[in-house]
Amino acid sequence: MAERTESNQTAPAERQPSRGRPRDAERDRALLAATLQVLQESGYGGLTTAAVAKRAGVSTATLYRRWRSKEDLVVGTAVSWASDLGPQPDTGSLRGDLAVLLRDKAETLEGPGGRLLHILIGEAAHNEALARVLDSAIVQPVRDRAAEVVRRAVARGDIPPLENAHVLADLVVGSMVSRLFLTPDVTYQGATDGPTSGEAAIGELLPFLLRALGAPPG
Amino acid sequence: MAERTESNQTAPAERQPSRGRPRDAERDRALLAATLQVLQESGYGGLTTAAVAKRAGVSTATLYRRWRSKEDLVVGTAVSWASDLGPQPDTGSLRGDLAVLLRDKAETLEGPGGRLLHILIGEAAHNEALARVLDSAIVQPVRDRAAEVVRRAVARGDIPPLENAHVLADLVVGSMVSRLFLTPDVTYQGATDGPTSGEAAIGELLPFLLRALGAPPG
Repeated sequence: MAERTESNQTAPAERQPSRGRPRDAERDRALLAATLQVLQESGYGGLTTAAVAKRAGVSTATLYRRWRSKEDLVVGTAVSWASDLGPQPDTGSLRGDLAVLLRDKAETLEGPGGRLLHILIGEAAHNEALARVLDSAIVQPVRDRAAEVVRRAVARGDIPPLENAHVLADLVVGSMVSRLFLTPDVTYQGATDGPTSGEAAIGELLPFLLRALGAPPG
Repeated sequence: MAERTESNQTAPAERQPSRGRPRDAERDRALLAATLQVLQESGYGGLTTAAVAKRAGVSTATLYRRWRSKEDLVVGTAVSWASDLGPQPDTGSLRGDLAVLLRDKAETLEGPGGRLLHILIGEAAHNEALARVLDSAIVQPVRDRAAEVVRRAVARGDIPPLENAHVLADLVVGSMVSRLFLTPDVTYQGATDGPTSGEAAIGELLPFLLRALGAPPG
C-alpha cells in the first residue's frame, strides 16, 4: 500500500496512460523549444509553422491540432517560458527579497528567453495578441512577486504601507530592461559580465529601490 | 542695412545657395520621414531602400549617396529622431525637473518614435549597429539630462550626493518602457489616456523616484 501511494505520487502518468497524454506533453515541449530556436534565428516575420514543425520532428497537421496559428504558437511559447520564473522565496529581509527578484529578472533577460522578449517588444507595436502576452508573461509575474515583497516588508515593519506599490514592478522590470536591452555590450548577443551585466546592475539598483520603498539603503 | 541683417537671420539659405545645401537638407528630412513611415508599416525586415526612396520622392541613387545601406538609414533616422528630445530646463525644484524629464520621455514613447523604438529593440538582439543606436539615441540623452537633474538637486542642497547617479536614467527610461511598452492598452497602438497612460504613470512614479534619490516624496 505504501509502495502504491509512492508510485502514485512520483509517476501518475504511468499509472494512467490513457489517450497518449505523456507523448502529447513531450510534443508540446519539443514544439515550444523549436519555436524559440526558429524565432531566434529568423525573427517573428521569418518564422513559419512548417519550419517549427520540421525542427520539432512533427507534422504541420500535428502542430495545428495544438496551435491554431503562428501567433497562437508564439504566445504559447512566451507563456510557457514565463511559467518557469517560479515563486518569490522569503529571505527574511527586504534587501534579500529584492535581490532575489532582481537576480531572477536579470537571469530571465540574459537567458534564451531574452531574445524572445526582444522579438515580442518588436512585434507588440502592431500585434495586439503579442502585446498582451508581454504583460501576462513578463510584467504580471513580477507584479505578483513585487506585491508579495512589499506585503512582507510592511508586515515586518521594515517600511510603511505604500500607495501604488505596483510601481515597484515597473522599476524592477524597467530598470533591468534599460540596463540589459538598451545598453550596448549586453544588448548585442549578451556579455554576461562587465559593468553592464545583470549582477553589476543589481548592486547599483538595490540602494535606489530600497530608498524608493522607504527603507534605509545601507 | 537693417533689412539686410534681418534677411540674413531669417533666410541664410537664400543668400548662400552654393552647392544645393538647402535642397540636401530637405531631401534628408524627406528620407528620414519616409523611413519612419515605411518602418511603421513594414517593420525592419520588410523595409527596402527602394520603398523609402519612392516614398520620399527621390531616386535610390540619391538615397545611397547619403546613406550607405538600409541599416545606416535606420540608424540615421533614430539619431535624428532622438536629437529632437531637447535639453533639460531648470524648473527650480527636483520634483519639477523629474516631472519634465518623465513627461518628455513619455511623449517620446507615445509619439511616432515609440514605434521606431519597438522595432529597434526587436532588431537589437541580432544587429549590433541597431543595438548601439538604442543606447546613443534613447538612453544617453536621458542619462545626460538625469545627471544634470541630480547635479542641480545636490547643488541646491535638496539631496545628498549620490553614488551611481546614472541609475536614475535606467529608472526613468525603464519604468516608462515598462508602463508604456509592456502593459496592454498602451502597448498596442497607443491609448494615451486611461490608467496606463504616460501622464498617470508620471504621477505614480514621482514619489518613488524622489525617495530613491533621497528626497522627501511630499
